[in-house]
Amino acid sequence: MSTDTNTDGESTSNCTAKSSSNDSDSHEQEVGATIDDFDADPGQLTAVGLGPGHPEGMTERARAALLDAEHIVGYTTYIELIPDEITEEADELYDTPMCGEVSRTEEAIDRTLAGNDVAIVGSGDPNVYALAGLALEIIESKGATATMLDFEVIPGVPAAQSCGARLGAPLVNDTVSISLSDHLVPMPEIESRLHAAAKESFTITIYNPWSRKRRENFEKCCEILLTHRDEDTPVGIVHGAGRDDEEVLITDLAALESLGESEIIDMTTTIVVGNEETYVWDDRMVTPRGYETKYDY
Amino acid sequence: MSTDTNTDGESTSNCTAKSSSNDSDSHEQEVGATIDDFDADPGQLTAVGLGPGHPEGMTERARAALLDAEHIVGYTTYIELIPDEITEEADELYDTPMCGEVSRTEEAIDRTLAGNDVAIVGSGDPNVYALAGLALEIIESKGATATMLDFEVIPGVPAAQSCGARLGAPLVNDTVSISLSDHLVPMPEIESRLHAAAKESFTITIYNPWSRKRRENFEKCCEILLTHRDEDTPVGIVHGAGRDDEEVLITDLAALESLGESEIIDMTTTIVVGNEETYVWDDRMVTPRGYETKYDY
Repeated sequence: MSTDTNTDGESTSNCTAKSSSNDSDSHEQEVGATIDDFDADPGQLTAVGLGPGHPEGMTERARAALLDAEHIVGYTTYIELIPDEITEEADELYDTPMCGEVSRTEEAIDRTLAGNDVAIVGSGDPNVYALAGLALEIIESKGATATMLDFEVIPGVPAAQSCGARLGAPLVNDTVSISLSDHLVPMPEIESRLHAAAKESFTITIYNPWSRKRRENFEKCCEILLTHRDEDTPVGIVHGAGRDDEEVLITDLAALESLGESEIIDMTTTIVVGNEETYVWDDRMVTPRGYETKYDY
Repeated sequence: MSTDTNTDGESTSNCTAKSSSNDSDSHEQEVGATIDDFDADPGQLTAVGLGPGHPEGMTERARAALLDAEHIVGYTTYIELIPDEITEEADELYDTPMCGEVSRTEEAIDRTLAGNDVAIVGSGDPNVYALAGLALEIIESKGATATMLDFEVIPGVPAAQSCGARLGAPLVNDTVSISLSDHLVPMPEIESRLHAAAKESFTITIYNPWSRKRRENFEKCCEILLTHRDEDTPVGIVHGAGRDDEEVLITDLAALESLGESEIIDMTTTIVVGNEETYVWDDRMVTPRGYETKYDY
């Protein structure tokens, strides 16, 4: 859920479901059915984090939860990441293209209330800019409870971790995750958080760095980082982590803004900004944890 | 590596290796062998994150890497978390009790330089207060390179994510991880980061909250959080995530400090502090992502 774009519901075009008739515009969307519309015993709802793009990045617990589910619900790209031997075991798949996470999540909940065991999936972790919270909010709005649906969150490896691993050891000390999407959070708040994080020597993982709609946010972000950190601060860029089009680049803060114009930075990109102590060695980013102050090696 | 205590090397008592004669006090430790002392072709070194305590929390990639390794090196508790069918496949296990991560990491590197394929393991993720950075630093100090050892980091589910999942959806927006251990980072720096994070409405995951040696750090942390956030800010406490002694408590900031005296907060505990918008519903913590400002549900 974290490495891709629809997690913050930015795009609202072409949002039609493949296997349902729910095609209302998501900005006008209202919750339809409530708990009173169902007379079955509810099934179980599980929010499953798939981790990075490749199936080997999934935990065994995630795999088992998907095999147990009767219905699997998710963004088309994420459903396609699940190995066939798992999706073939499901009674039904419900996938919608980019956007529409509110209607998709509601669909998952309605199917659970109707008596099915349902897994709603996303890449990364359900707690990282993703659906765990939205699911709970919609369950409440329907007059149901999480307990009634035996709601469970199955964690996954977030993009910060899968990208950090590809870059070496950039995140070994205190760290911050910030999304540049201002679809759900006002930009002044995002700017204020960037200032605070950059001032305090946190390493920073930037989610949702770029879209055609929010190019200025990325430029503003680079500007803020440069007011607090040197131009040669190491920056790691990972495009499409764990996918076929994965691309990794280690650069510096001075070069970051202009890379916004290149293909490596898009909505599937995660950016890791080092702190004052981060250095590049042998094509890896290293943020020392501080052992060198205590040990002689 | 992230859910347990030895990751920041705090304790230095009883640090004797079970299968080697390396028992030097880690504070006086120096790197022994360098690249020149080995004449074999080096093997491969992999830093593997096991995720939360139970084997089902491991990714398939982590499992495959452990099965491929000839030697598996780690803190005794972590080695014991690995299923027998994996450890039985290894030629050698090298485990040391709590502390000694510098000597253990050096041992893993020496074994790799001697021609063995080695996995060095920890719980959580190798980038979260853990060994990925230390391994790179020691490789460099020995005159070797990461490329020479085909060094790879295999990410795992960090404690923030496994604890977040147990608590519901507390981390769905921008978030910070801070360790209270001042073994490797000066306490004023930790305090300054706590102030910055609490002021800026980040959710906060607190690692290493408590030890007999640093009780004051925890008290100071509670005091700082209360200067910026209300007493009724939801706080989730997860003790021993994914282990047999797992315990979960949702409380508030006013009650946090006194819980430092109870058994739920020790070195295996991770604490998640909500932001101004976090609420508790049906025994879950929910931090809204902001959908409610855009959608009617």
